[in-house]
Amino acid sequence: MNHLQLFNNIVRKKSFLCVGLDSEIEKIPAFLRKLKDPVFEFNKRIIDATQEYTVAYKPNVAFYESLGAEGWLSLAATVKYIRKKYPEIFIIADAKRGDIGNTSRMYAKSFLENMPFDAVTVAPYMGEDSITPFLSYNDKWVVLLALTSNKGADDFQYHDEDGLKLYQRVLTISQKWGSVDNLMYVVGATRAEMLKDIRKIVPEHFLLVPGVGAQGGSLKEVAKYGMTNRCGLLVNSSRGIIFADNTEKFAKVAGEKALEMQQEMECYLKERNLI
Amino acid sequence: MNHLQLFNNIVRKKSFLCVGLDSEIEKIPAFLRKLKDPVFEFNKRIIDATQEYTVAYKPNVAFYESLGAEGWLSLAATVKYIRKKYPEIFIIADAKRGDIGNTSRMYAKSFLENMPFDAVTVAPYMGEDSITPFLSYNDKWVVLLALTSNKGADDFQYHDEDGLKLYQRVLTISQKWGSVDNLMYVVGATRAEMLKDIRKIVPEHFLLVPGVGAQGGSLKEVAKYGMTNRCGLLVNSSRGIIFADNTEKFAKVAGEKALEMQQEMECYLKERNLI
Repeated sequence: MNHLQLFNNIVRKKSFLCVGLDSEIEKIPAFLRKLKDPVFEFNKRIIDATQEYTVAYKPNVAFYESLGAEGWLSLAATVKYIRKKYPEIFIIADAKRGDIGNTSRMYAKSFLENMPFDAVTVAPYMGEDSITPFLSYNDKWVVLLALTSNKGADDFQYHDEDGLKLYQRVLTISQKWGSVDNLMYVVGATRAEMLKDIRKIVPEHFLLVPGVGAQGGSLKEVAKYGMTNRCGLLVNSSRGIIFADNTEKFAKVAGEKALEMQQEMECYLKERNLI
Repeated sequence: MNHLQLFNNIVRKKSFLCVGLDSEIEKIPAFLRKLKDPVFEFNKRIIDATQEYTVAYKPNVAFYESLGAEGWLSLAATVKYIRKKYPEIFIIADAKRGDIGNTSRMYAKSFLENMPFDAVTVAPYMGEDSITPFLSYNDKWVVLLALTSNKGADDFQYHDEDGLKLYQRVLTISQKWGSVDNLMYVVGATRAEMLKDIRKIVPEHFLLVPGVGAQGGSLKEVAKYGMTNRCGLLVNSSRGIIFADNTEKFAKVAGEKALEMQQEMECYLKERNLI
């Protein structure tokens, strides 16, 4: 999928919602835990209930990895299910990987070959040769951490060389490694007001924006400061959707929460004359 | 294991060698690939042949993850094997993880609870709350990336604020989060001359030093500039040992290569009057 195809999906669905499948087994409704693969069964129901309002899914790999080999099977089954039943939906492995070149190639193989993800999140600390192996796949994407939504973002991401903060340097330098068709950035919604300045550095790249909902970010502000003429935003919500309810109605409630977000997103897309 | 126990193991073995189990399936001797779990069978033979000269093993998780669920079983079997047969050996999950707090807790669970690793490598970009979940385990360690051995290290790690480079800031700030008993740092051997200045910031912490051998770093220089009164070094070699031969003699040759490194290390420990 390229930049334009992703935008076309956003127009068609009137949504730039990404649902985070942070499917922690302890938080899954109890009645599902009796099934053979509770995490996959949970995801399947969440996906079926939310896909109409969603352009992307983003399983955070940590929650699967913490279950060992079984967790990897649940993850693979989830990606396969989405790819087969809803082939137009963009799937991001939130893995935050990154290593020296020959090792990053192995991580790229895991997420972009063995499992048919469209994209993988990558940490920038180790620089170009840790990131380019992920960019060698046609129609696949790197989502590079720039400005994250957590408190610890203050520790290093604002480190400033002659007025250029580290996250700005990441945005500036990394643009040479990829294009608007295979590189997007993580920018936390908890820093929405900074999107205005970030757009001066990356006017067209898609941004993956976590932190709306449970972490306190505002969708309105994200749209106001971050939206481009091709939308340029995927806004992620995880816990606020998938764990909104933990009874037998959990999927229905998740669908309602996703619909609420889609409706708000539709307003912002209309205001901008994109739909 | 704490700082002193790790040093005691170094004294007893007259070695500060860490063998990197980057056991890429395509590079494993062909005759092993017929077995049920070739990666584990390879590791087992490498471990038995090298353990006498080794204080630590470091599987890089990427090579296991790229084999999916089966790879995770090979990794778990490898850690279990070392822990049971050679309980005094330090085992590092080279995973380079890091995410927001509740997610890092899941990664910590994977490597420090589900599998009995002693330590896990963590990337610093997301700051304190991405790292502290790994530090909440007694006798377990974080190995934080500071200055890596790859070319891409130049892209961001030298970003300089008023004379303080990013990797120096990582070393300085992160010391508040842990102690010499649960925090060590990755410093690439390809930058050995910089160890002198790094020791001004972290005079006592253990450093995990990759990049000797295939990547071109010098063990002599690492020992000269990096060694402390409690050694303070774990020097990693991966390909130079485990893939030195790919015939039926591979384990014997790996043992010989490890012995060579141990002998050189013994000299440096003697020069410093540590043994």
